[in-house]
Amino acid sequence: MRNLTMLTDLYQLTMMYGYLKSGMRDNIATFDMFYRSKDESTHYAIMAGLEQLIDYLKNLHFDEEAIDYLRSLGIFDEEFMQELRDFKFSGDVYAVPEGTIVFPGEPLVRVTAPIFEAQLVETALLNIINHQTLIATKASRVVQAAEGGTVMEFGLRRAQGPDAGIYGARAAIIGGCKSTSNVLTGQMYSIPIAGTHAHSWVMSFPDEITAFRKYAEMFPTSCLLLVDTYDTLKSGVPNAITVFNELRAVGHEPVGIRLDSGDLAYLSREARKMLDAAGFPNTIICASGDLDENLIRDLKLQGACIDTWGVGTKLITSEDCPSLGGVYKMSAETIDGQVIPKIKISENPVKITNPGIKRLWRIYDNKTGKATADLIALNHESYDTSKPLTIYDPVNTWKSMTLTDYSMKELQVQIFDKGECVYESPSLKEIQQHCAEDLDTFWDQYKRLLNPHRYKVDLSDSLWMLKNSMLQSHRRG
Amino acid sequence: MRNLTMLTDLYQLTMMYGYLKSGMRDNIATFDMFYRSKDESTHYAIMAGLEQLIDYLKNLHFDEEAIDYLRSLGIFDEEFMQELRDFKFSGDVYAVPEGTIVFPGEPLVRVTAPIFEAQLVETALLNIINHQTLIATKASRVVQAAEGGTVMEFGLRRAQGPDAGIYGARAAIIGGCKSTSNVLTGQMYSIPIAGTHAHSWVMSFPDEITAFRKYAEMFPTSCLLLVDTYDTLKSGVPNAITVFNELRAVGHEPVGIRLDSGDLAYLSREARKMLDAAGFPNTIICASGDLDENLIRDLKLQGACIDTWGVGTKLITSEDCPSLGGVYKMSAETIDGQVIPKIKISENPVKITNPGIKRLWRIYDNKTGKATADLIALNHESYDTSKPLTIYDPVNTWKSMTLTDYSMKELQVQIFDKGECVYESPSLKEIQQHCAEDLDTFWDQYKRLLNPHRYKVDLSDSLWMLKNSMLQSHRRG
Repeated sequence: MRNLTMLTDLYQLTMMYGYLKSGMRDNIATFDMFYRSKDESTHYAIMAGLEQLIDYLKNLHFDEEAIDYLRSLGIFDEEFMQELRDFKFSGDVYAVPEGTIVFPGEPLVRVTAPIFEAQLVETALLNIINHQTLIATKASRVVQAAEGGTVMEFGLRRAQGPDAGIYGARAAIIGGCKSTSNVLTGQMYSIPIAGTHAHSWVMSFPDEITAFRKYAEMFPTSCLLLVDTYDTLKSGVPNAITVFNELRAVGHEPVGIRLDSGDLAYLSREARKMLDAAGFPNTIICASGDLDENLIRDLKLQGACIDTWGVGTKLITSEDCPSLGGVYKMSAETIDGQVIPKIKISENPVKITNPGIKRLWRIYDNKTGKATADLIALNHESYDTSKPLTIYDPVNTWKSMTLTDYSMKELQVQIFDKGECVYESPSLKEIQQHCAEDLDTFWDQYKRLLNPHRYKVDLSDSLWMLKNSMLQSHRRG
Repeated sequence: MRNLTMLTDLYQLTMMYGYLKSGMRDNIATFDMFYRSKDESTHYAIMAGLEQLIDYLKNLHFDEEAIDYLRSLGIFDEEFMQELRDFKFSGDVYAVPEGTIVFPGEPLVRVTAPIFEAQLVETALLNIINHQTLIATKASRVVQAAEGGTVMEFGLRRAQGPDAGIYGARAAIIGGCKSTSNVLTGQMYSIPIAGTHAHSWVMSFPDEITAFRKYAEMFPTSCLLLVDTYDTLKSGVPNAITVFNELRAVGHEPVGIRLDSGDLAYLSREARKMLDAAGFPNTIICASGDLDENLIRDLKLQGACIDTWGVGTKLITSEDCPSLGGVYKMSAETIDGQVIPKIKISENPVKITNPGIKRLWRIYDNKTGKATADLIALNHESYDTSKPLTIYDPVNTWKSMTLTDYSMKELQVQIFDKGECVYESPSLKEIQQHCAEDLDTFWDQYKRLLNPHRYKVDLSDSLWMLKNSMLQSHRRG
């Protein structure tokens, strides 16, 4: 397992040094990780990355090389070096399981630990969860646009480095992709991998039909041919049909063709006609090339006959929104046994944090089984679902809603208990399944790709009052 | 060293299997890696990632776990497994050194190897070079906008996974950033790391001034205070000045303040006045928060008094252009000792590749020392710089230019010779220096952030004729 302990910002270490020297090392701090949405591309998000966060926390330790390097900076003393040498994560972590639908402002991960530890982990925690949640979310949008068509993740060559390819593919599977081209991710997570041949295969033979014949000979039961190297409709598809007939003559059915350039709507319709006319109505047409959710939707509207979508660059980089605005903010400190809620004030109301140690609930309408709203509440609050429940908008606090005939589910589960991992990550297939089921509990208006209806994430009465009183006392100075 | 051999697309393996089974395993293929520019954000690029590409190639081998996994797919036979077990990269590689300014369409990396090997490495090669070149380029643009101000890379928490943070920071340094917040990258590449404290430091004390005092006590010689936790001008800056005076009283000069929110133009001007009036004209003002080259340029135009820029999300993800359009295309095959140039045809003229084994030259004007044009030529071509030279536009082939009083420099150097690495990567500091010097050889019009003048990348006479004759013979079918 890779040691990512040094994957942190320098200021985490200078603050840790400061906490140590100020006698605050063991003050217990609680931090919430949540994200702020910039636009509709992350109106909802798919939680992902928890398994890698767990690995990171389990493996946290400063090796001697790290200690030597930090000493060489000349800003820390030997007491601090000894603290780092003894460092082990001893905190509690609660988090929303991977594959769960989440919304802006919701606490996705909660860390309660000595501030010395809770501060160190901020950077890697954000890096891991921000990345995978972003890509799982993008994949979910792409899969929605494909409306039941198969989506394959093809982006490794354009990913932002090896990890972006490896864990981006993992996240894409969570979001609903059926397979990836990435062999390493396939090996690491036991998920289907996909791929046939490139233009270079065709170019390395004297002509296209020879290349196709050779490919069919190698892979008679999984023969999918890339038909756009020279001329899709004049050369590629006719040559593919010739080879498909030869394949059938020796007892094998071809899989289909792939289009990677040109007008995919027109070419796929024409290719479909040619394949059908030649007696291959069951072959699939796979398309790739600069696809994203918007282009897939448009191609489908224009009658493209595409069964399978290979989505690369724009998925693996989340091109229109290449970062998730995830942050990690202190919500409470426990000093001498007393919990002191903390709030970060901002001129911008959506940047004001929710104070206190909190829990995250999802409320379902018992009649429809659909999610009605999420509720952020204080840790000690409990609910009697036989009674009506009033919840408050966190920004526009004069907005409230009263619910009846509902049930509630807590979204965060415990991951670490005093430094011990108490959670076992499901398989990637199980996470993918959970994601699909979770999406089904939301009405379509919340999942719309453009201008979605805003899903309610409200505050409990007690949290609302705590926040309000802290804001009032801040205003009074 | 991490084994990234399996970081490839499945189709590379299916093609390798096909080449093996077709008796083509040892056909020698030449591939060029080059990029296509989508917009002005990569009008020029800074070559980066070569050191990691070298590590990858040196370390290429399939371990037993990989073999077992590939066997489990049920699509390959044992002869292939044995080939993989014996696999070692035996090819030649030429590449443009890191930190060099490069342009769309130029061969940045050339691989000549048995097609069995040359095919495998495509995906990781593209992943590594695409990513680092993208981020080095973005950093170069940001550094240009800062016009001599210091730029620090702060993006780790929003990078697309750990590698994107680690190697993104490396690339940002190549592009001109002076430091990174990323401790691991600092350790790995011996480069300056930067950082002081976050809002959480201030929030973990009863009040701001206590937090500032404690910080100044810990770091009396490097005291830079974040002043926007509560109210920048009413609380943060006055408290900082109080602590700066206390620091001076014990014989230390403060470093400065950091602004992380609000209107950075107004706040920095006001803070500057307050610091100057209080007798701290030499303190610096550092700014961070959603910065990129456009915002930095605008803030400077509006008289912002900012000396140092901490640039995070938008740099580490290259937000406006999160992928480089790098591709890897076959340019020649050597079969039975005969070199056969290869061309990839496309309806889109800029997607037609340049055939043959090629070299890349940069032509300098002897009078000014500035770069005039780049020239892509065939491998065997040599030049007598005492004679005039005529070069041709690769797309608009009727455009040509004749040069006199020029000198020429070859841009690619040999990296691998028959599988042996014959190149030693310079230090990151040296690469950064090379980049800065190389940028100086280009006129400003080519480096303009918006609507830059297109720098000429032309073809030699012989290459132009080869390409043209291949296009003609394709047209004739």
